[in-house]
Amino acid sequence: MSGNTFGKLFAVTTFGESHGPALGCIIDGCPPGIELTEADLQKDLDLRKPGTSRHTTQRREPDEVRILSGVFEGRTTGTPIGLLIENTDQRSKDYSKISEQFRPAHADYTYTHKYGFRDYRGGGRSSARETAMRVAAGAVARKFLEQRLGIRIRGYLAQLGPIAIDKLDWDQVHQNPFFCPDSDKVPELESYMDALRKEGDSIGARINVVAEGVPPGLGEPIFDRLDADLAHALMSINAVKGVEIGAGFGCVTQKGTEHRDEMTPDGFLSNQAGGVLGGISSGQPILASIALKPTSSLRLPGRSIDIHGNPVEVITTGRHDPCVGIRATPIAEAMMAIVLMDHYLRHRAQNGDVVVETPDIEKR
Amino acid sequence: MSGNTFGKLFAVTTFGESHGPALGCIIDGCPPGIELTEADLQKDLDLRKPGTSRHTTQRREPDEVRILSGVFEGRTTGTPIGLLIENTDQRSKDYSKISEQFRPAHADYTYTHKYGFRDYRGGGRSSARETAMRVAAGAVARKFLEQRLGIRIRGYLAQLGPIAIDKLDWDQVHQNPFFCPDSDKVPELESYMDALRKEGDSIGARINVVAEGVPPGLGEPIFDRLDADLAHALMSINAVKGVEIGAGFGCVTQKGTEHRDEMTPDGFLSNQAGGVLGGISSGQPILASIALKPTSSLRLPGRSIDIHGNPVEVITTGRHDPCVGIRATPIAEAMMAIVLMDHYLRHRAQNGDVVVETPDIEKR
Amino acid sequence: MSGNTFGKLFAVTTFGESHGPALGCIIDGCPPGIELTEADLQKDLDLRKPGTSRHTTQRREPDEVRILSGVFEGRTTGTPIGLLIENTDQRSKDYSKISEQFRPAHADYTYTHKYGFRDYRGGGRSSARETAMRVAAGAVARKFLEQRLGIRIRGYLAQLGPIAIDKLDWDQVHQNPFFCPDSDKVPELESYMDALRKEGDSIGARINVVAEGVPPGLGEPIFDRLDADLAHALMSINAVKGVEIGAGFGCVTQKGTEHRDEMTPDGFLSNQAGGVLGGISSGQPILASIALKPTSSLRLPGRSIDIHGNPVEVITTGRHDPCVGIRATPIAEAMMAIVLMDHYLRHRAQNGDVVVETPDIEKR
Amino acid sequence: MSGNTFGKLFAVTTFGESHGPALGCIIDGCPPGIELTEADLQKDLDLRKPGTSRHTTQRREPDEVRILSGVFEGRTTGTPIGLLIENTDQRSKDYSKISEQFRPAHADYTYTHKYGFRDYRGGGRSSARETAMRVAAGAVARKFLEQRLGIRIRGYLAQLGPIAIDKLDWDQVHQNPFFCPDSDKVPELESYMDALRKEGDSIGARINVVAEGVPPGLGEPIFDRLDADLAHALMSINAVKGVEIGAGFGCVTQKGTEHRDEMTPDGFLSNQAGGVLGGISSGQPILASIALKPTSSLRLPGRSIDIHGNPVEVITTGRHDPCVGIRATPIAEAMMAIVLMDHYLRHRAQNGDVVVETPDIEKR
Repeated sequence: MSGNTFGKLFAVTTFGESHGPALGCIIDGCPPGIELTEADLQKDLDLRKPGTSRHTTQRREPDEVRILSGVFEGRTTGTPIGLLIENTDQRSKDYSKISEQFRPAHADYTYTHKYGFRDYRGGGRSSARETAMRVAAGAVARKFLEQRLGIRIRGYLAQLGPIAIDKLDWDQVHQNPFFCPDSDKVPELESYMDALRKEGDSIGARINVVAEGVPPGLGEPIFDRLDADLAHALMSINAVKGVEIGAGFGCVTQKGTEHRDEMTPDGFLSNQAGGVLGGISSGQPILASIALKPTSSLRLPGRSIDIHGNPVEVITTGRHDPCVGIRATPIAEAMMAIVLMDHYLRHRAQNGDVVVETPDIEKR
Repeated sequence: MSGNTFGKLFAVTTFGESHGPALGCIIDGCPPGIELTEADLQKDLDLRKPGTSRHTTQRREPDEVRILSGVFEGRTTGTPIGLLIENTDQRSKDYSKISEQFRPAHADYTYTHKYGFRDYRGGGRSSARETAMRVAAGAVARKFLEQRLGIRIRGYLAQLGPIAIDKLDWDQVHQNPFFCPDSDKVPELESYMDALRKEGDSIGARINVVAEGVPPGLGEPIFDRLDADLAHALMSINAVKGVEIGAGFGCVTQKGTEHRDEMTPDGFLSNQAGGVLGGISSGQPILASIALKPTSSLRLPGRSIDIHGNPVEVITTGRHDPCVGIRATPIAEAMMAIVLMDHYLRHRAQNGDVVVETPDIEKR
Repeated sequence: MSGNTFGKLFAVTTFGESHGPALGCIIDGCPPGIELTEADLQKDLDLRKPGTSRHTTQRREPDEVRILSGVFEGRTTGTPIGLLIENTDQRSKDYSKISEQFRPAHADYTYTHKYGFRDYRGGGRSSARETAMRVAAGAVARKFLEQRLGIRIRGYLAQLGPIAIDKLDWDQVHQNPFFCPDSDKVPELESYMDALRKEGDSIGARINVVAEGVPPGLGEPIFDRLDADLAHALMSINAVKGVEIGAGFGCVTQKGTEHRDEMTPDGFLSNQAGGVLGGISSGQPILASIALKPTSSLRLPGRSIDIHGNPVEVITTGRHDPCVGIRATPIAEAMMAIVLMDHYLRHRAQNGDVVVETPDIEKR
Repeated sequence: MSGNTFGKLFAVTTFGESHGPALGCIIDGCPPGIELTEADLQKDLDLRKPGTSRHTTQRREPDEVRILSGVFEGRTTGTPIGLLIENTDQRSKDYSKISEQFRPAHADYTYTHKYGFRDYRGGGRSSARETAMRVAAGAVARKFLEQRLGIRIRGYLAQLGPIAIDKLDWDQVHQNPFFCPDSDKVPELESYMDALRKEGDSIGARINVVAEGVPPGLGEPIFDRLDADLAHALMSINAVKGVEIGAGFGCVTQKGTEHRDEMTPDGFLSNQAGGVLGGISSGQPILASIALKPTSSLRLPGRSIDIHGNPVEVITTGRHDPCVGIRATPIAEAMMAIVLMDHYLRHRAQNGDVVVETPDIEKR
């Protein structure tokens, strides 16, 4: 398996390059009987879509998804779901200038080493364009998780460069182009981004994702712990350089008495664990945080080499996100949804539907 | 697959509970012809072994590994390698007191929810005792990576609670019980740990792992990027709550001009990427960092509940590591070795042995 | 994994129902650098296509395949190959009559039990229409196997009901609508089929498939022996009820002295093994044979029940193959190609490109 | 994956060579809570054990199995089950004579090509000795299938060379060393085998296996149909050259009206399908049949070559089964059990425990 499938029982396999004719995916393993329409997917795709504000790439893609199989009379059939998005805005001439150059911090250099040639069309398969399909597949998982299990997955921008966002008001997240949960910070974000764009530079970001309502018992130790699979899923998103669960790197300086989440008959007293103990969900909210690097497509020149090994100076023109973190929230949500869906099915395979009778303090 | 296999082509499947008769593993997919003896594995196992200093658990386990198959006349045969370590020090009475209690921040609560019963014998499968098998399997991968590809994988303690270690002298790492690369910090670590033990508390830690000599081209986008698989592997180690590649969370506040690693015909000028671009190795050293939480087995009482939902006060007596990070270095090295080995085979499957002719600046 | 992927390293995942908007597949793991055009696939698809003679279903499908990704400037890129065939002839009203009936010997009854509902549109996912995608994916494998390894895979009709075909003239196979290698038998086949069609009944068939030029060493014991994976692949084709390798069921009455293929420095003296020893290719031609049941879509009435459990009499009108075996040859060839391709990559992963220096008697 | 794992959710991974220190396996994915003791496994192992009659190899192996993990207080825990059988009778000198020879029709030649060296110790991994672990793992599956689902799996000798066995009396199968269900045929089998042994030759056989009580709905089309996975499992047994489901190759000459199993409210009227329609169980008994070739270890000389390519005459002395089919019945039963167990879990993952409300005619 060459890495284009995620999930073992809710298995999402994708294809498509940024400047090819289309993107697609197959979801194999979706349970039958789930109500599903193209509108369910489109809703999430529109949140990720480029060109919706001046702070993201101006590539214009309607990202209209078609369901080609696996749904009959409005419900999933249990057979594979085929999804397709045609690429419409493929202006490949934008990229012709750099067809023999390796852009610093891009995947050009490594893809060339791996496959033995250079697909210069806007990153080809390495472009973040493929994340559209993650969002579409994630929307299917979310539909199931919400309807059948009452699980809700939401994310938000927690930091953009120097601007940390501390206030969490879920109602604000979709009211601004940054997925920022604090409306007071939006003007600061806007002026920071405007200055950055003028400058020609880019910036990193941190995204938090939370899943509420996850039943205890999901996770497959020892290797496919729930947190390990989340780390896999989240680190596989373009530009991600770090993943934390719960306290994350904060635990390095914590003592055991600080970190351990004590329990009472009324529930857990804290959530340092981020909802995962021993690799298995505890019933508390799952908390994950990711770091996204600043994009490397800059108008500011950088030193590099060409495919013959000669030194060159690279400038990236064209349409790029100065902060890839901005559009990453729906992608991170989608990946968390896929992981939880997959683990729900894996748990059900081994343990059946039967709910174990133990004190469910997390539900109180 | 219930999560006890890691790797797709170099597939490591393990079994064993902390207080069962034995631990074992099967490595399927190891190439034939590698020189391998039990001593190769024992060397790494002895580094992880408990009871070697006063700073780790006093459980006494020789951790002697037997190779039961897959090696003939001193070389691997290409058939599955069976490994076995008998448990010798199984004092299970230590744990009888808490057989009906859920220890805070332990896997007791979640395992009970998942499987429907309580294996109270020292954590059963959730105990870090299983990591012995990771180290043994990792040793096989390291042997191949070193001999055939010249890859060297090494780790060290980067921080223990408040004590950050900044100086990196590889020669010091195995000269002290902390895997500390700065000999000047060892006395401070010793007195900190002595005080902590007296106190009955525990502490978190950060471990760094570095792989040098990795050829460019390893990694299987889009989901099984090299960094994503590393995140999976490292997050699957007991107590790990965060994983970083290269700049890690530092990239949140970086600008693109800071983060991008420029290239010249003489090589990369920095390594913010941590040796991975677009999910594929660049030829630079692979840099990973992990956060380990403080163990939750404390002599200081904590509030919890029993299996009937009644409130209890839990005190953990018995033998425990006050800083699980200390013995984590060989485990993290082993997991990185398994990931690299697996990706080397995956790359070779698709691309063959042929080395791609591109400017290999990373080798200069 | 819900069963819609075949192959581990050359992984083919398909989707699509007989009366949905499209069929598609993703091939993940195809090596980069292979010359590939849509015409390469179309050639094989046209051989499987319905409606090309009066002896097969009169459904009219152009089966035009589009390559949506994974090919750049005429060569595979190593990234996933997306393929799509739009369904054009979906006359679903043909099937409306039987929407509440279970057709005897069809998958209606079992699909309903499995998924909890009835997709009455011409069999939905269970229709042999999905085999178009097997043929398309197989064509990619065949291109690689032929060009890089000189492997040739060919099949033919070996028996149709009472008519056994003993003469094997490869040049004749594509000269008649039956894939019959003996031109003398074609008139007999034609009149038999004409009578059968008049009668309203259907008939079984046997297809043989041969792969020549397979290097020794392919196969992954103990479970994924080459013959076991071939059995899996071939038995997964609609209507197949039996698979043989080499002597097949003939070996039940053979003595060891008859069955064993003796060797001399000039090669093997026979091929009872069918090119596989101990689950690994021997370098001799791989010989497989399959039995295809008569289709159950008959104009002759049959006793059955409806979805409420009431007795009904079922008559299938509409367009059906009276001998599904006729169009099965390209499908069986495709599945053999996929298996060999997958095993070539699996072998290369573990063993590299290096050719083992042993007496290659099979090549003489 | 190098082929030593069978099953996706009930995953059995084995190791061990015929003359190494031990055989072992790990079962990952077994549901928790199943009563399981070593005696449950030993019962089946004793049926496969060599040396129990004069008609099988005289190698003496107690085949005593130990459960090393995954069972606690008499019940499975849901964590991996480790099994071990130490080899005790390893007389490797028996094989030293032929260490440089390729035995005709053996795996020597192909293993050497695959792995680049010759493990001359009685076949090494290619020996049927590994089937002991299949039987042990199958016994775990059978325990679950019987206790939880009421599924019963039984096999018998259907033909031995020229002697076809037509009468099926289940009570007789374990009353003779041949697994022959017709006591009247036993004397004929005995004299045939005595003559064969004297002669120094060997003979093929046919085994039938039947699973009763399988619920409808198991099977994962389109590639992992239940019959396709059975074909994979059964063809992976040493010496098997053919697999049939239901009518098998008989369907080649059947008409549709003969083959289709009509249904009435009181049940199916026949079982030509062998309990599988469209790749999914129908609720009728699953019927499989396999052909086993005559062993190639003969005292009668055969032409071959040595590892240098020189012609040699090979005579196999030592302890061998003149009809490997005789001991194959428990192995085939075990493989069928593993397949059904795996598919039960796969079905449950996607569809849950809920029984679909359709007319269950098969139960009447």
